[in-house]
Amino acid sequence: MHIRAATEADIPEILALIRALAEYEKLTHVVVATEDALRGTLFGPKPAAEVLLAFEGESCCGFALFFANYSTFLAKPGLYLEDLFVKPEFRGRGVGRALLAKLAAIAEERGYGRMEWSVLDWNEPAIGFYKKLGAVAMDEWTVFRVTGEALARLAK
Amino acid sequence: MHIRAATEADIPEILALIRALAEYEKLTHVVVATEDALRGTLFGPKPAAEVLLAFEGESCCGFALFFANYSTFLAKPGLYLEDLFVKPEFRGRGVGRALLAKLAAIAEERGYGRMEWSVLDWNEPAIGFYKKLGAVAMDEWTVFRVTGEALARLAK
Repeated sequence: MHIRAATEADIPEILALIRALAEYEKLTHVVVATEDALRGTLFGPKPAAEVLLAFEGESCCGFALFFANYSTFLAKPGLYLEDLFVKPEFRGRGVGRALLAKLAAIAEERGYGRMEWSVLDWNEPAIGFYKKLGAVAMDEWTVFRVTGEALARLAK
Repeated sequence: MHIRAATEADIPEILALIRALAEYEKLTHVVVATEDALRGTLFGPKPAAEVLLAFEGESCCGFALFFANYSTFLAKPGLYLEDLFVKPEFRGRGVGRALLAKLAAIAEERGYGRMEWSVLDWNEPAIGFYKKLGAVAMDEWTVFRVTGEALARLAK
C-alpha cells in the first residue's frame, strides 16, 4: 500500500470517493460537487484543501482531504481533516490508520499544534478506532452553521 | 460603531482579546500565544487566518478571527469563525451581531457556501442568539482532536 498527494488527473477518482463517503453518511442528497468545481477549488492558483490518495497496487482504496485551521490560544495553524474514507472492500487492512499516520506526520513536519476532524455520533466503529489512536472527543463543543437564505439575510 | 480588518499594529490588542476570551471560556491555562507568534502566523507571507476588529469611537470593543474551511459535498470553501468576542462592557449593543453580519457579507462576496463556528454547550445566551440568526446546531457531529504526544506517536 502506498499514499501520494492527488493531482488534477485524479479528479474523477476524488469525486467518486466523495460520493461514496456521502452514501456511507446517508447524505447523498447534499452533494452538488462536480469535477469542474473540484478543479477550480483544489487545483487552481489558491487551493482550498489538499488531498491524499491511498493505493493497493493500481487500485485506489481511499482518500483524505484536509486544510489548515488556526488556534488562537496556540497562535498556530492546525491540520483539519475534512474527509477520511476507505472503500468498503479495502477495510480492515490498515488503510485508514496509514492515512491518519501520514496526516499526523504532515502536521508534525509543518509545526502544526494539532489535528482535528468531525465524526458522526452514530459511527461507533470509527469513534472506537479514533480513541485507540489517542484522539480526544471535544464533547462540550457544538458546531453551528448558517447557510443559504439565513446567510444572505444575515449579510444584509 | 465600525468594523475594520486588523493590521500588524493591532497585535497587542488582538492578544489581549484572545486572553479575555480564554478567561470567559475558563481556558486561560491553554493560552500560549505570544505577539511574535501572532505576527508570524497572521501577518507573514501566508496568513493562516484573518481578523476583524470592532470599534466604538477609539475603543476596540471586540474581534472576530476566521479562516476558510472546505466542504467536499459542495466543492466550495466556507467561512470558519474561530473566535468571536465582545468585551463585557460593550455587550448588549449589537457588536456581536454586527461582526457576524460583516462575516456573512464576506462569505457571500467570496462565494462561500456557508459559515460555521463552535460553541461551548454551557453557553446558553450565545446559543439562543445564534439560533435566532438562523444558525443550525450540527448536534450529530463531534470533533476529535489529537495533539502532543499522541500526535507524535501517530506520526511514526
